[in-house]
Amino acid sequence: MGKCLCHPEVETSYLCMKDNVYLCAECLTCRHPNIYCKFRSSCPIWYMQTKGAEWGDEKIAGAERPVRTVVFMPDNKEVKVPEGTTLLEAAQAADVRLNASCNGKGACGKCKLIVESGDVDTNSTHLLSEKEKEKNYVLACQSIVRGDVTVRIPEETLERRLKVAGMGKETTEQLRGLVKEINPMLREVPLELSAPTLDDPVSDLDRLNRGLKKAGCNVDSLSVGLEVMRDLAAAMRDDNWRVTASIMGKKCSNEILRVASGNGLPRSLGLAIDVGTTSIVVYLVDMTNGNILAATSGHNKQAACGDDVINRIICAEKNGVKKLSRMGLAAINGLINEALDSIGADPNEIKNVVISGNTTMVHLLLQVEPRYIRREPYIPVVSEFPVFKGSDIGLKVNPIAAVFVMPGPASYVGGDIVSGVLYSGFHREEPLTLFIDVGTNGEIVLGNKDWLMAASCSAGPAFEGGGIRWGMRAEEGAIEKISINSDTLEPSFSTVGNVLPRGICGSGMIDLIPEMLLAGIIDQRGRFIQDGGHPRLKQDGDDIAYVLALAEDTAMDEEIIFSEADIENIIRSKGAVYAGFTVLLKQTGLEFSMVDRLWIAGGFGQYLDIEKAIIIGMLPDIDRKKFQYLGNSSIAGAYMALLSNKFREEARKISKKMTYIDFSSNSQFMDEFSAALFLPHTNIKEFPNIKRLLNVKCRLT
Amino acid sequence: MGKCLCHPEVETSYLCMKDNVYLCAECLTCRHPNIYCKFRSSCPIWYMQTKGAEWGDEKIAGAERPVRTVVFMPDNKEVKVPEGTTLLEAAQAADVRLNASCNGKGACGKCKLIVESGDVDTNSTHLLSEKEKEKNYVLACQSIVRGDVTVRIPEETLERRLKVAGMGKETTEQLRGLVKEINPMLREVPLELSAPTLDDPVSDLDRLNRGLKKAGCNVDSLSVGLEVMRDLAAAMRDDNWRVTASIMGKKCSNEILRVASGNGLPRSLGLAIDVGTTSIVVYLVDMTNGNILAATSGHNKQAACGDDVINRIICAEKNGVKKLSRMGLAAINGLINEALDSIGADPNEIKNVVISGNTTMVHLLLQVEPRYIRREPYIPVVSEFPVFKGSDIGLKVNPIAAVFVMPGPASYVGGDIVSGVLYSGFHREEPLTLFIDVGTNGEIVLGNKDWLMAASCSAGPAFEGGGIRWGMRAEEGAIEKISINSDTLEPSFSTVGNVLPRGICGSGMIDLIPEMLLAGIIDQRGRFIQDGGHPRLKQDGDDIAYVLALAEDTAMDEEIIFSEADIENIIRSKGAVYAGFTVLLKQTGLEFSMVDRLWIAGGFGQYLDIEKAIIIGMLPDIDRKKFQYLGNSSIAGAYMALLSNKFREEARKISKKMTYIDFSSNSQFMDEFSAALFLPHTNIKEFPNIKRLLNVKCRLT
Repeated sequence: MGKCLCHPEVETSYLCMKDNVYLCAECLTCRHPNIYCKFRSSCPIWYMQTKGAEWGDEKIAGAERPVRTVVFMPDNKEVKVPEGTTLLEAAQAADVRLNASCNGKGACGKCKLIVESGDVDTNSTHLLSEKEKEKNYVLACQSIVRGDVTVRIPEETLERRLKVAGMGKETTEQLRGLVKEINPMLREVPLELSAPTLDDPVSDLDRLNRGLKKAGCNVDSLSVGLEVMRDLAAAMRDDNWRVTASIMGKKCSNEILRVASGNGLPRSLGLAIDVGTTSIVVYLVDMTNGNILAATSGHNKQAACGDDVINRIICAEKNGVKKLSRMGLAAINGLINEALDSIGADPNEIKNVVISGNTTMVHLLLQVEPRYIRREPYIPVVSEFPVFKGSDIGLKVNPIAAVFVMPGPASYVGGDIVSGVLYSGFHREEPLTLFIDVGTNGEIVLGNKDWLMAASCSAGPAFEGGGIRWGMRAEEGAIEKISINSDTLEPSFSTVGNVLPRGICGSGMIDLIPEMLLAGIIDQRGRFIQDGGHPRLKQDGDDIAYVLALAEDTAMDEEIIFSEADIENIIRSKGAVYAGFTVLLKQTGLEFSMVDRLWIAGGFGQYLDIEKAIIIGMLPDIDRKKFQYLGNSSIAGAYMALLSNKFREEARKISKKMTYIDFSSNSQFMDEFSAALFLPHTNIKEFPNIKRLLNVKCRLT
Repeated sequence: MGKCLCHPEVETSYLCMKDNVYLCAECLTCRHPNIYCKFRSSCPIWYMQTKGAEWGDEKIAGAERPVRTVVFMPDNKEVKVPEGTTLLEAAQAADVRLNASCNGKGACGKCKLIVESGDVDTNSTHLLSEKEKEKNYVLACQSIVRGDVTVRIPEETLERRLKVAGMGKETTEQLRGLVKEINPMLREVPLELSAPTLDDPVSDLDRLNRGLKKAGCNVDSLSVGLEVMRDLAAAMRDDNWRVTASIMGKKCSNEILRVASGNGLPRSLGLAIDVGTTSIVVYLVDMTNGNILAATSGHNKQAACGDDVINRIICAEKNGVKKLSRMGLAAINGLINEALDSIGADPNEIKNVVISGNTTMVHLLLQVEPRYIRREPYIPVVSEFPVFKGSDIGLKVNPIAAVFVMPGPASYVGGDIVSGVLYSGFHREEPLTLFIDVGTNGEIVLGNKDWLMAASCSAGPAFEGGGIRWGMRAEEGAIEKISINSDTLEPSFSTVGNVLPRGICGSGMIDLIPEMLLAGIIDQRGRFIQDGGHPRLKQDGDDIAYVLALAEDTAMDEEIIFSEADIENIIRSKGAVYAGFTVLLKQTGLEFSMVDRLWIAGGFGQYLDIEKAIIIGMLPDIDRKKFQYLGNSSIAGAYMALLSNKFREEARKISKKMTYIDFSSNSQFMDEFSAALFLPHTNIKEFPNIKRLLNVKCRLT
């Protein structure tokens, strides 16, 4: 028991685990979604909430319960929580990040912990093996703290730092070369003005405008707000008529956002931000020369509310869009801080920002209602955005920083795709190009300089590790390349970072399935041909699975397997991509043979084996020279728009030019999708080279 | 003693006189200028502050003093104040409005009260006559409450309602006729949109824009803020795709400020506001047809900080510009409420506002630094303003109401003059016109459709009653017309409202002085020719005075006199006006004879006797047909700009076109001013008709 921080007259047993302070029942109401603590500015819980962390919600409030200590090993992180809190909530309060794709529903089985000591009530679950249960494994979300507890976080449960794909000097130079001229949205214009006299008595603002005109600004379309006017007299005189004006370029008029005394030009930094459903990438850019000074990436903390956009929207409907916005912002702001720290810079130096994300991510971030995105006829609230100020949307940058949000033409083809097209540049050229970005969704754009058609094909999160038992993102420990000896069925593989394997990422899966097919382990339907007799094949409940890595060879001392259910998931994903290609072409009266280029962007990892992707039937069996893997094209386009007004205008034009075709209620798409649920395809004639290969290797007719 | 409202644990003897609640020392700090109570929203003192009222300030805080009751008769208004409060502060706390031009400095002698009972410490003052002192008159600002007190407010001390000059059906129709087409700044566009389908899946905002385009809006230059986006999905669907969009017209781009569900068009009202240094006039206008639905006027509550702009600026430097802004706003919002009440309307129905005021008034209202207006080289911060929102500046109107502030080219030629020129229309015509607005200052504009020159001539507040012993504004009881029988020296006069006289207003003074001159009471220097022997002439201290009304004939039972000092004040004012005319003409190489028209605007009252104004030498002795009296041209121009975009643009052009000449350090002006300190002028040749008249009447050579 202790005195409440806000109401010292109240004795309470609630202890805030963050700052080790007591809080009374009234203060605790702030933890309910959408109800904010009235002592906000001094409230550590409010602070937690804005950081995206939270604990207990309804479960705690209302009754006083004893406080228990939970210790997370191996880092020995300790928190105090009321009895009845789940271990997952306790982890969130302790800022310990666990894998928890389903956000505590007990469905994904990823939030495994090992109870080392203490009293925990845990629900039984089929997601843990008997072996695991013997070792005291529990699911964090299904386990309730009853006393002081010490738990250990196994390797596979820890969230890991994403690698920033394709960074480095080479990429920087390649990107920098695309931008001929730098035009920031927020410009800082240093001026040395003449002092007023009786013969030159124009108002301070007119004097400023005169100076700006001399400096080449279009003064006719300048607007200025009351706050600037209120501070103007002092700013003009404080350094003897030397000032710096910050001017935001808008669609039609420009606005003077600040006038500061002194005309020594401070450093100006910019941010390109790719807000993905799964991961977020941030580039910190020198706005004077376009150099990428730092790059960071991390998980979108909204992932705790589900892996895909549909689950995020459902979560927003239930808990309020503000909550998801805060989670996304917490992740973005964390990455911004990290990038700033790495070069010793200050948030106020960031004066230009471009955000690229899919339509749902952008709606959530801006706190714009997302619910109609998931309901037929799938309508977003906004497609094209005005230039915002950093403070409008809660970014930890200069409050007057200009923020350009990539326009996105439809609910399922968003700004990230526009950004990708911008980077790829095929919208400026003659050749007919098929562009696909495989992320948590799969978006396809077909066209050239004259027209653009776009569609989304719900590939699902399998290639990013979602829905796959040992699936994971392209992080350290992910199996990314595999070959299988067709005699011994023994695999050989390499992992990201060359460490012991922890799971398998998208490029690994696209390697694994053709290898299993060609080794005769599975048939073209993706079913296991052989039974569990072989050491590499084992019964897994009702299912059969291929043992990719033996327990002794993994980071977790547990075997990594790939089951029939996993294969089916991949086949559905690749089938959706291929059906997407097919229907988009058919709707425009074209065929694969007419396509001059097929460019692939997305989060497969460092590379994508095109040949293997053709064998599984994700990519069409056409001239290999037509293929190119672009990597993260969303961040690349954001970088270009950050630096150049020409590219911002181009992004708007791309978005306007795209014709969106909805596949979700399209029967042709369903037919093509069903036909593609085969390796490589039910119509093998579409894959003549693969047919030959399979004939040789597997003696298929 | 009682429990503090905010801190019930504290016993205190401070009683808030407004709401009869106790407040502890900590809460009381909020009464210090620029320190705000942290319990603001529930604090009655904060409430008082925002209303412009206040009490005690530094004098109270710091020491606990007993609470005393002060009763103001004849209305029996009662307040409780700590001992040591002045009667003026007590009156302000009780919301009793007293005349107090000098804001408690003990200089103007206008805040007279009669102590009926109780203990009051009062400083001796020469501003009260012995007779007054005998009757227990005190100056409210010089008297400190020592016990429970009852005071009576004499007639002459009560602030009176101004009459709105020139209102009525005729004016309405005349003004209405000047506006050919109505274009509000904030337009409400009702729309009936089609519901989205799979074949028409554009975003909500694009759907809205499409509807607006159909309705004739320029969609290309439309911008929209985050708040509108956040509420858009619900607004679009709540009444089945029937919506009303509120669009603010800006200089270059337009902005969607609100989208509400439903498309039944609500009433739209507008306000034209003339913010004078002394008085404020408000017209409430039907924006659909331009009809003036109500008109109110009242005193600018800033008058408690001094009569002229210089004293207001000094006060703002001392107490913060926010304080003066609040005082001005309190007066304006009170008048708005009054106008709304009279027609049963709601503040939210007001969606367009035009404010016309001099440069200082506008700076103070907008809380823009005014201090450099009064310092050489006399620089305002802003001359031309963007369109504000009602909520930006604290007007009690719809928060998104568009507010146009009349641009003003210089520190001493402001938006009220631009507004006056706009109304008069001479800037569109060929004839050379001399325009003067005689308010607390006197601003002169010379020119025609090709050019405009402007200057300010510091006429001072005499014509509005300032600095004149019995001077008052053109309110009820003001002597406005006078003639004097040159044999008996008996005056006959009429008053505003035909009631017993309480003082003399501008038009009365312009009558009185020629009458005294022609009756041989004063000479051309304004000195009394006869001594105090005559019943109408009396010694007044060292001075001689003309008794305009005997004690038994006045509302206050006290005689109304006009002394040599008063005459000197008027001569100085009229001399400044005439010198202004002369110098402005000389600077442009012109003469009075070349002027085709001389138009006079201002606050003289209902009318101005041109002939008398020529006799005293305020107006030049030219063809009488060239003169015209315009009344309050500032409010009339504001009305025109409220309704029509053409006139708003015209106002901007007028302001830009005006060349300002500063007289304050102009030696030519000083020479001309000295020459004009005579009746009518030291150079009588400039007044041939008046010379003849005086020859006949007074046998002058």
